[in-house]
Amino acid sequence: MQNFELTILGCSSATPTSKRNPTAQLLNIAERFFLIDCGEATQIQLRRFKIKFQRIDNIFISHLHGDHYLGLMGLLSSMHLLGRTDVVHLFCPAELQEIIEIHFKYSFTNLNFKIIYHHHKYINNDLIFEDDKVEIRAIVLNHRIPCCGFVFIEKPLLPNISKESIAFYGIPFEQILSVKNGADFINSSGEIIPNEKLITHRFIPRKYAYCSDTCYDERIIEYIKHADLLYHEATFMAGMEARAKETFHSTALQAATIAEKAEVKKLMIGHYSARYKELQPLLDEAQSVFKNTILAIEGEKTIIKHQE
Amino acid sequence: MQNFELTILGCSSATPTSKRNPTAQLLNIAERFFLIDCGEATQIQLRRFKIKFQRIDNIFISHLHGDHYLGLMGLLSSMHLLGRTDVVHLFCPAELQEIIEIHFKYSFTNLNFKIIYHHHKYINNDLIFEDDKVEIRAIVLNHRIPCCGFVFIEKPLLPNISKESIAFYGIPFEQILSVKNGADFINSSGEIIPNEKLITHRFIPRKYAYCSDTCYDERIIEYIKHADLLYHEATFMAGMEARAKETFHSTALQAATIAEKAEVKKLMIGHYSARYKELQPLLDEAQSVFKNTILAIEGEKTIIKHQE
Repeated sequence: MQNFELTILGCSSATPTSKRNPTAQLLNIAERFFLIDCGEATQIQLRRFKIKFQRIDNIFISHLHGDHYLGLMGLLSSMHLLGRTDVVHLFCPAELQEIIEIHFKYSFTNLNFKIIYHHHKYINNDLIFEDDKVEIRAIVLNHRIPCCGFVFIEKPLLPNISKESIAFYGIPFEQILSVKNGADFINSSGEIIPNEKLITHRFIPRKYAYCSDTCYDERIIEYIKHADLLYHEATFMAGMEARAKETFHSTALQAATIAEKAEVKKLMIGHYSARYKELQPLLDEAQSVFKNTILAIEGEKTIIKHQE
Repeated sequence: MQNFELTILGCSSATPTSKRNPTAQLLNIAERFFLIDCGEATQIQLRRFKIKFQRIDNIFISHLHGDHYLGLMGLLSSMHLLGRTDVVHLFCPAELQEIIEIHFKYSFTNLNFKIIYHHHKYINNDLIFEDDKVEIRAIVLNHRIPCCGFVFIEKPLLPNISKESIAFYGIPFEQILSVKNGADFINSSGEIIPNEKLITHRFIPRKYAYCSDTCYDERIIEYIKHADLLYHEATFMAGMEARAKETFHSTALQAATIAEKAEVKKLMIGHYSARYKELQPLLDEAQSVFKNTILAIEGEKTIIKHQE
């Protein structure tokens, strides 16, 4: 079965700590490597965790607060210095293009590879990327500045047909694909064998939703519904709702409430304020509302499995 | 005696490694904290080494290659978020102001403190900073893009007069300062006691020269002459002179040759290419020409003592 796994590179909010780096994640779907946000020192984290960063072809930047993109110039620069020639697709706020161009202008750098910019349109459910394995859609988040979340959805995989069915009904090789694609099978006697009798296992496409940074906003629920994994920021703990509201962030309790209402399979919280030395209390708080919550921890890999 | 000590925060060249961060140094002269270059993740290094970064009032950026300044936006942003109101003086290429302003414009950040920009004029020996404890002068380095080195010179300290001399010659309290400042002493009989008879110890002002990035260029020698500590980049090892020349960098051997010709007291090499996993060969190479060489190692502090 193809890979669908998330590696956390940074889980801190605006001010990093000596132990936690600002936001960055790497999502591997079927050996496509998607970098989601790129806080300062992301390239150092990629090296620490022995991830070959030249395999990253698509980078998604949620918004222009420094803790979500300040590592990008260094990463692009290292990609260049290490000989990259492959295109990088950058899904980002339009203004980031101006920022990147000014950096490379003043360092007199002519990149050996092309950056293709895909500027955010901030339209919910907008299809921003598609290939044969995955589609990626935008979610409009509710933050102090324009901010975009992302939903990564695996393309439907063809179901299995058992060898026994193929032999029993005498399905010829050239018709297997059409049966996998949903057709009934008509045997040599003209008898119709319904598709559902032939199929042994259907795979529900897996879905990962990334929501950082945002205040509590139920309008996102319909776009992240039933996600296998939801990453939702939890900058603060309960009791700091006023501060969360003022800064357009969420508490762990609020993240868990969104997870519950969206009926996701699993919640990962992150983007922790530097004030929290220990993360267990944030986890406890989220789990009090939504049991299947985990913490974003740098270097940890979460494998998203097909639902049974 | 007042402090004069250098802490290395990063010693890598353009592409960082999992173990070495890009260039940044902190120089403490009499509790003035000068940040010299600010590669990506400098704020994280400052935290790792438990340095209170709000004590930094003056930042010096040599040039606009990313490995020397990409940590600055994050550091300034964290200074702001953590409540700084004190002015930051930024000694840098003029273009950096444009870069910084565009970052803060698009993150809608109004810093709570003022940045006063001191744009490089690229004039050798130009006095760019002065207070009662230290003066700082520019050196024009020879790199692919305009690049400025810095010489930090302690202000002359007043010499000592022994208690015995004061008692023996009957020097009144109100004349001690003028004797320390070089005056002879005339006693009540009109006898002149020459200054050099009264002074027990003179302090030679300490001097730290920072030269990164630069190719081998003897024109810098007169400005770094007799420095107590010279930091000179040594991106490559001997045998890679052609690559060094092409990229306007130096080898360890070239750094040591400059140190020898400038008759400095001690040489520190750094800005190592990522190709060198082990640094001992670079040290051996430099020491073959200039014995008193040390390696820049992250987190290590070098105390610059007064010459006897």
